[in-house]
Amino acid sequence: MLLFPDLTTLDLVGPYDVFVKAPCFEVLLVGESTDVIRAEGGLLLKPSVSLQDCPQLDILFVPGGKGINELLTNSNVISFLQEQAKKAKYITSVCTGSLVLAAAGLLDGYKATTHWRSIELLKMFGVAVQDSRVVRDRNRITGGGVTSGIDFGLMLTALIGGDEMARIVQLQLEYHPEPPFHAGSPQTAGLPVLQRTKELTQPMFNLRKKIIQDLLKGKKQDI
Amino acid sequence: MLLFPDLTTLDLVGPYDVFVKAPCFEVLLVGESTDVIRAEGGLLLKPSVSLQDCPQLDILFVPGGKGINELLTNSNVISFLQEQAKKAKYITSVCTGSLVLAAAGLLDGYKATTHWRSIELLKMFGVAVQDSRVVRDRNRITGGGVTSGIDFGLMLTALIGGDEMARIVQLQLEYHPEPPFHAGSPQTAGLPVLQRTKELTQPMFNLRKKIIQDLLKGKKQDI
Repeated sequence: MLLFPDLTTLDLVGPYDVFVKAPCFEVLLVGESTDVIRAEGGLLLKPSVSLQDCPQLDILFVPGGKGINELLTNSNVISFLQEQAKKAKYITSVCTGSLVLAAAGLLDGYKATTHWRSIELLKMFGVAVQDSRVVRDRNRITGGGVTSGIDFGLMLTALIGGDEMARIVQLQLEYHPEPPFHAGSPQTAGLPVLQRTKELTQPMFNLRKKIIQDLLKGKKQDI
Repeated sequence: MLLFPDLTTLDLVGPYDVFVKAPCFEVLLVGESTDVIRAEGGLLLKPSVSLQDCPQLDILFVPGGKGINELLTNSNVISFLQEQAKKAKYITSVCTGSLVLAAAGLLDGYKATTHWRSIELLKMFGVAVQDSRVVRDRNRITGGGVTSGIDFGLMLTALIGGDEMARIVQLQLEYHPEPPFHAGSPQTAGLPVLQRTKELTQPMFNLRKKIIQDLLKGKKQDI
């Protein structure tokens, strides 16, 4: 699981807590270095291994968050993902982590998804975006926004450890959701909430779009 | 928000990520010291302030996890909670965090809840346990198992920042859950999964029950 500054904590910890409770996984937390990093909101996390010292992983996982803006053009991280992906059995992400996979070319020719706000940005990479909470296309598994990571984690557990294991973990996590509102998707949130949320996230959207445009321009020039 | 060794990461991060996205909260992560601690599964977290240096908090929050066993008899932490509780506006927990609040006497005379596996243990403290995903009794708000922390966080956001703010955060978190199985509660998991999960958690349950029995015996002798 990749750690980086300004990641969205719940993108990481939704699947992490599933993996920790499922005996079919061994979790490794990988950072550019093992220095403490600051996640969104200030939570301080310490990676257990650096990119350089990381062994070959069976499952690559990239969470999302504000910090992916920097990753999109971070050649250390992109090269790491590209190298690991050659032998990894599954290549996965939650939320805007899929934009990083796309920037590394790892979603070329695959169906995938991302946070609803970033669907348009994922399409810019030419990815066949599919409107589902979790999308599996062969060995690529991508989750939608933040909390979809719990659904993703349980799905991957079922795939690797079997349905019974996934059900046991779901019960341990008491994942019997009762959201107080019916507002968790653009389709259900209602227009005023959707518009306000779009407004609030517009500066980040614009900035990210610009980074991706520049990145794609650069790639074309390389060819 | 209280950090301690062997906390369940999702207990903490469910509400944390809600609070970080809701502009009505400022989050402080409090540890016994500011040394790095190891959460369940090995994730390394660094508290931003020690118990000793922590200012008066408006909202006290205690997550659960294996590590609460140590907290139940940790006089530093228990005294800290008791002192803070005198002036805090809300006293809250998720999962087995409510056992710590109960050990500090902070649920005496209140209705509360906890992880389904610990309901019996919370009753040992004389707490009026209620079977709901989130229970509010005046200024005590307690969540059930692990993932209930997201529902709890949104409920508290609505209470403090209003419904619209909670809906915006829910949409940002894309909290439109689609669990792959219908196994998230003892009522829905089915008997084989429920029995297997009980077996797996029996040693921890027995150990915790013994700690609470000894704690309650000690308290009686003090009187």
